Amino acid sequence: MARQLTGKLVVATHNPGKLKEMRELLAPYGVEAVSAGELNLPAPAETGHMFSENAAIKAHAAARATGLPAFADDSGICVEALDGAPGLFSADWAEAGDFGPAMERVERELRRRGASEPEQRRAHFVSALILAWPDCHEELFEGRAFGAMVWPPRGAGGFGYDPMFLPDGSERTFGELSAEEKHGLHGSRGAALSHRARAFVKLAEACLKSPG
Amino acid sequence: MARQLTGKLVVATHNPGKLKEMRELLAPYGVEAVSAGELNLPAPAETGHMFSENAAIKAHAAARATGLPAFADDSGICVEALDGAPGLFSADWAEAGDFGPAMERVERELRRRGASEPEQRRAHFVSALILAWPDCHEELFEGRAFGAMVWPPRGAGGFGYDPMFLPDGSERTFGELSAEEKHGLHGSRGAALSHRARAFVKLAEACLKSPG
Repeated sequence: MARQLTGKLVVATHNPGKLKEMRELLAPYGVEAVSAGELNLPAPAETGHMFSENAAIKAHAAARATGLPAFADDSGICVEALDGAPGLFSADWAEAGDFGPAMERVERELRRRGASEPEQRRAHFVSALILAWPDCHEELFEGRAFGAMVWPPRGAGGFGYDPMFLPDGSERTFGELSAEEKHGLHGSRGAALSHRARAFVKLAEACLKSPG
Repeated sequence: MARQLTGKLVVATHNPGKLKEMRELLAPYGVEAVSAGELNLPAPAETGHMFSENAAIKAHAAARATGLPAFADDSGICVEALDGAPGLFSADWAEAGDFGPAMERVERELRRRGASEPEQRRAHFVSALILAWPDCHEELFEGRAFGAMVWPPRGAGGFGYDPMFLPDGSERTFGELSAEEKHGLHGSRGAALSHRARAFVKLAEACLKSPG
């Protein structure tokens, strides 16, 4: 059985948006979240070879520094015809936070390989969540959303490669879906559920005491 | 149409085994191969985010340094349940050239994710070949071999993760196959054909004048 999480948790992020999302997700379980950014913890170098490894680097660093359980996530998009690229480098392909050039690069590489049909353009988003404790114990939860890369990108919502990703079973890209639909809030549990929501559902089932 | 290759070619490798293999493959086409190692060219840093990008870095560096067309390859194994890992880091997971610990690491990560059935242990080898010319033109050829990761590893042949990789349509791992079977020499063109052989067949059909 997975170790249970209660009380206070460090969210190993310097991103206020991610912290806000985690606070909302954790509030019903009575878990209080404080972030690495708020505690002025340094951000460790993400030198891992897998998403789970980068999440573990961040979570263990925060747990060691604070003596509290810590949470971190790492995520990206893996395109099959590109052998998993951009993968760990998903954010690096953006230019100053602009993912337009990153999506163009994916499209250019797909065309170079003659990948025009949806089945040649398969991809998945992945989110790896790590809960780490000061005694080095860790729990891993991964969520994936499968679909295909479309061109041109569609929708102004979401983040990163969202406008280029058409999840299986949906006629709208992640960029065209609402946050509620993607995150599975308010009871929605559709095919378009995001990779992060899928991972968090696993974490909550394993490590958090059911609210109510 | 792809640019044709004639005359002399620099093989961007410092590995005598790879050079020998390329010499044998190219000899029937009247192409003479000299290696970056023989020419004392420095090995550039492989900082790419895709196999094809690392091959291009090596090939263009050799073409620029010599004024001759140059060839380079980059290859690795991508495990689906690990989102493409070890991928670009396939060689890095070995310890001082020993792939035993690398295969154990793959197995440990698969077990951690509960991947026990063959369909949960899908993987592919990929080889990206780049031909580059001094005027910066390049041609890309990729070959992939699909299969599943087995445990324990079987066979003493091959290299790297070969003993752990069971190609689709074969009852023997790459480690149990002869070089002739893997490389498709002497007319063998079976399901067990290696990723590198598949890529070279494409290169030869596109860029080399048929022998005889």
